[in-house]
Amino acid sequence: MSTPKILILGAGYGGLMTAVRLQKQMNYNEVEMTLVNKHDYHYFTTWLHEPAAGTTDPDKCRVEIQTLLDTNKIKFVKGSVSEIKREEKKVLLESGEELTYDYLVVALGSEPETFGIQGLKEYAFSIRSINSVREIREHIEYNFAKYKMEHRPEQLTFIVGGAGFTGIEFLGELTDRIPELCEEFDVDRSLVKVYNIEAAPTVLPGFDQELVDYAMEVLTRKGVTFKINTPIKECTPDGVVLGDGEEIKSNTVIWTGGVRGNSVIEKAGFETMRGRVKVDEFLRAPGHEDVFVIGDSALLINNETNRPYPPTAQIAIQEGDTLASNLIALIRGGQMKAFVPSLKGTVASLGKGEAIGLVGDKKLFGGSAAFMKKVIDNRSLFLIGGLSLMMKKAKL
Amino acid sequence: MSTPKILILGAGYGGLMTAVRLQKQMNYNEVEMTLVNKHDYHYFTTWLHEPAAGTTDPDKCRVEIQTLLDTNKIKFVKGSVSEIKREEKKVLLESGEELTYDYLVVALGSEPETFGIQGLKEYAFSIRSINSVREIREHIEYNFAKYKMEHRPEQLTFIVGGAGFTGIEFLGELTDRIPELCEEFDVDRSLVKVYNIEAAPTVLPGFDQELVDYAMEVLTRKGVTFKINTPIKECTPDGVVLGDGEEIKSNTVIWTGGVRGNSVIEKAGFETMRGRVKVDEFLRAPGHEDVFVIGDSALLINNETNRPYPPTAQIAIQEGDTLASNLIALIRGGQMKAFVPSLKGTVASLGKGEAIGLVGDKKLFGGSAAFMKKVIDNRSLFLIGGLSLMMKKAKL
Repeated sequence: MSTPKILILGAGYGGLMTAVRLQKQMNYNEVEMTLVNKHDYHYFTTWLHEPAAGTTDPDKCRVEIQTLLDTNKIKFVKGSVSEIKREEKKVLLESGEELTYDYLVVALGSEPETFGIQGLKEYAFSIRSINSVREIREHIEYNFAKYKMEHRPEQLTFIVGGAGFTGIEFLGELTDRIPELCEEFDVDRSLVKVYNIEAAPTVLPGFDQELVDYAMEVLTRKGVTFKINTPIKECTPDGVVLGDGEEIKSNTVIWTGGVRGNSVIEKAGFETMRGRVKVDEFLRAPGHEDVFVIGDSALLINNETNRPYPPTAQIAIQEGDTLASNLIALIRGGQMKAFVPSLKGTVASLGKGEAIGLVGDKKLFGGSAAFMKKVIDNRSLFLIGGLSLMMKKAKL
Repeated sequence: MSTPKILILGAGYGGLMTAVRLQKQMNYNEVEMTLVNKHDYHYFTTWLHEPAAGTTDPDKCRVEIQTLLDTNKIKFVKGSVSEIKREEKKVLLESGEELTYDYLVVALGSEPETFGIQGLKEYAFSIRSINSVREIREHIEYNFAKYKMEHRPEQLTFIVGGAGFTGIEFLGELTDRIPELCEEFDVDRSLVKVYNIEAAPTVLPGFDQELVDYAMEVLTRKGVTFKINTPIKECTPDGVVLGDGEEIKSNTVIWTGGVRGNSVIEKAGFETMRGRVKVDEFLRAPGHEDVFVIGDSALLINNETNRPYPPTAQIAIQEGDTLASNLIALIRGGQMKAFVPSLKGTVASLGKGEAIGLVGDKKLFGGSAAFMKKVIDNRSLFLIGGLSLMMKKAKL
């Protein structure tokens, strides 16, 4: 009988958590484990709004994967997944390499969801990787520099599409950065325009109204003009066209309006909703005993509300933890346990020293929410990389 | 009898030197002096290749003009000159403001000379102001960031047109910066291409051959591909087309091939060669007792060689010094003295710790030339702003 093979696709929160929990609990030679990831680093997706605005160094938001792995237990392969062959139990990489598995963990993350809005894919940026946020940061700076040569107002007009978590947190950082950029490039602050455009009737839909009001007040004071209840009809090379026909000229549109599952999953023939696989209580893809899907690619229904849980880092980490235990049970012949998320609260940053949050049923505002945000961010570092990662990257 | 009015246009090396020398020697109320400049700061033109490459902060290369002026003696006007009305002895600013003079000092600097090469004006950058070099720096960084998203080789191809002083010094800085950018953006150094394209049969035409050879060797080692004896036929949005029809694709073409006098001068009806006024021994425009032209807008013939002196900061500073004395003589009723440049030597930087130079008839290479370069740069700070400016901005 050969050693069982676990293949983990993706080293985001979910995949990496699965890997580090497995390596902690599995013995050498008990299982053959491989982790595949596009980059040789893991990045902290929930922090990316900061380097995108330029308030944090992107290098602060990533860690080399090999420093977190016991490479005697887990083999790391740098590569992009091009195809999952379910019937053959194989995964094909873009390099041509083929990997086989007994158990597959699909933790490939998300892609921007454009809801069919024309031009978004072509002309809008999205906050989704180290490379993408470096591009956004440089694009913003370049437009400040170009404004001083060409004086076109659209060079100083910034549009954030979507008022979910990423959009709101990015606005908090961007409005912190703008005064610095104005100083650096000799630009009058009053010339810079920042818009937030959201189709829903509120920002942070589903969030407590008092917290929402606080967030809007803080961001308005920091210079954001909100256009709520306003769908984007089209994104063009010149800016956006809104539902009511209004056109806002801008060189910089950043789309944060939503995500969908990685397209590799849909292409593999799994049944998906917005690219996400509706998993069972053991996080398995329907009809598969050997394929687990976690993180942003998994759709998990909250039985109390009958609505899906939002795709968050917190849940991805918990899924990875449970999945590792279940894989061990499968291999050693134990019982799998159902995944039940434990929601510890949510905090949204609004920039330096400002945030809002709900922890348990306690509402947090301003400084105390900002403090809690750091606690949460540092906790996820600890869960993924232990004390040593927390020491290296912790937010102080 | 009214107080005579001296109007100085431009606060580059020549105009600023004239102003600071006049304020030192003239008494209050003896003369009414006004200095007009587009920005409220003076910048060190000869340093601009550094912030253009991103090796020095642009703020290090400028100083607020008012900190150098005794505003009881000299009035500072921030504005762009749109017209010189010689007959009416008036100068019109873009703001609509009109200034009158008895003595006019035209020190408006230069503009890029494109020699009629198609597309250069539209698609090439030039190193000519704080705003322009910030744009170049941001453009370079942006292209590194974009490469990581789009992987187009022209995003990592940099073309410097012209192998005069500015071109060579910029190449020295750019090749210092590239390894830093490769590190920052996770780019393999071997993917970055740097070309220097020069129509003349040599780089640094007119310079000593041994020094030229040394410069080319250093820059070649740092990754520059030279294409000498190769005119640029056309600059396009995609790169350049060379004289022999070869096309090099590049997002970044920086033109350093030459300068001409400020176009305001030609429009004012002065007789010019490449926009420069051939001045007499007292730096006057021909046929004018009351108009002096100095710096890059002046054409001064070296009687020994019967060729024009190159437009350098060194000569501009000396012209400002002599002109200030001559204006005092005119106002107090003394004798003007002819301007005779005193050439103290030339050093070209090749990046960190590397340079070539000729001081007297002594050739300098490497570290000793780089040291001499700093001495020269710091000396010009001292001449313009005294000890306090030198303390603030000196190169260490």
